Amino acid sequence: MPSSEEVYARAAKLKNLRLRGLQMHIGSQITDVTPFEQAVRKVLPLVTRLNRKYGLEFLSIGGGLGIVYKPALASGVASWWKSAAARNILTPEKYARQIVPLLKPLGLRILLEPGRFISGNSGMLLTRIEYVKRTGKKNFLLVDAAMNDLIRPAFYEAYHEIVPLSRKNGALIKSDVVGPICESGDFFCQDRPLPKAGPGDYLGLLSAGAYSFAMASNYNSRPLAAEVLVNGKQAALVRERQPLKQIWHDEKIAPWLK
Amino acid sequence: MPSSEEVYARAAKLKNLRLRGLQMHIGSQITDVTPFEQAVRKVLPLVTRLNRKYGLEFLSIGGGLGIVYKPALASGVASWWKSAAARNILTPEKYARQIVPLLKPLGLRILLEPGRFISGNSGMLLTRIEYVKRTGKKNFLLVDAAMNDLIRPAFYEAYHEIVPLSRKNGALIKSDVVGPICESGDFFCQDRPLPKAGPGDYLGLLSAGAYSFAMASNYNSRPLAAEVLVNGKQAALVRERQPLKQIWHDEKIAPWLK
Repeated sequence: MPSSEEVYARAAKLKNLRLRGLQMHIGSQITDVTPFEQAVRKVLPLVTRLNRKYGLEFLSIGGGLGIVYKPALASGVASWWKSAAARNILTPEKYARQIVPLLKPLGLRILLEPGRFISGNSGMLLTRIEYVKRTGKKNFLLVDAAMNDLIRPAFYEAYHEIVPLSRKNGALIKSDVVGPICESGDFFCQDRPLPKAGPGDYLGLLSAGAYSFAMASNYNSRPLAAEVLVNGKQAALVRERQPLKQIWHDEKIAPWLK
Repeated sequence: MPSSEEVYARAAKLKNLRLRGLQMHIGSQITDVTPFEQAVRKVLPLVTRLNRKYGLEFLSIGGGLGIVYKPALASGVASWWKSAAARNILTPEKYARQIVPLLKPLGLRILLEPGRFISGNSGMLLTRIEYVKRTGKKNFLLVDAAMNDLIRPAFYEAYHEIVPLSRKNGALIKSDVVGPICESGDFFCQDRPLPKAGPGDYLGLLSAGAYSFAMASNYNSRPLAAEVLVNGKQAALVRERQPLKQIWHDEKIAPWLK
């Protein structure tokens, strides 16, 4: 394998290529600034040498800022964000404080990918409980959302906080929140202590503002969900629920079948 | 837990419920008729008793027929279907031969779910190699299809046979066929011996006629694929490639942002 500098040296000789920058990427959903700092420190000498030699435009430091999916909500969402734990989360300020001093001397344009940080925690998937099914070992809350709306729990075993929309008192019950799709992977959580809830109650699946609607499908002929933007006390429908017939709207009959 | 008969007895007393039938479901993608036969034999006494007592309309035997995803293609797809191995696969004829004699005496309408058997093996996801990336240990074939088109390998670690569209001679190379989406899960196979292939070559991902387009998403702002129906030497576009702008077509700007 040639080194990055060898690749650059070779690319510099090719007249149809323009050397514009360098990208690093150490991973996604990192909630601590230290790995970013270490990685930047590690590539700095290389970037500096390449920049001196070839005159770069940018350094992409990749990855973005990890968000809090599991805030351990003993005291409710709003209270948690005022808690000591919340003060330990990665913020753009902390990130900038450790990274900017390292990068500033380069004089390069810095690119990063903070999409999840911007939209992730601001989105909630709202769903209604249709039915409760109790077996000897399990308490299933069957909801009207499904893995086609939010595939992260089924796909990555990802954790999304689930809260009832109206405050529920009493003991927590280990529950599975599951959707109506015809496979065992259609769940949002398994054996999670949740307040007792029943048909008609609404649940909020938190941190659904990223990798949620963006990964949604029409599996089981389920139309895409509606999207509502909330701003303080204002709310607006910013995407209508997909009409069912739009799912097959673009299908055509082959001439020999007509 | 009440028994099925206790549930039926209770339901029979509720005047707004009508007892219409019974469903069993032992699983999906079962490629041997024996488990179906055993399950039918097991529920027969129950169904017979319930039918005698309540007069049922149907028995749903659930599940459908499993298909061949991994035909071990030593000699090409067409040859394989003529091979001895192919003669061992589950067919509707074999299924019917063992199940129908058990069910006929019931005189009930029988429901089953053979969708995958009908369409699974008849579909192929066609993709073009854009780039080959070799590292010390890996040979990556980067293609223009991605997990948003066919999520089964990434989601279920499912096997889909992959064949080059034009015959390739020479040694097989352990290869990863991967898509352009920004995550490590975007693969169709890993370390699979495949013929040497390069940019511009087409690959067919077989058995993509079920749980493929039906589970497709717009992840990474990738429009849904076009679909072509082939009948002998006839071919027709039965679904146009989704226009990119359709992805955001239904989005609206909130009034306070205008």
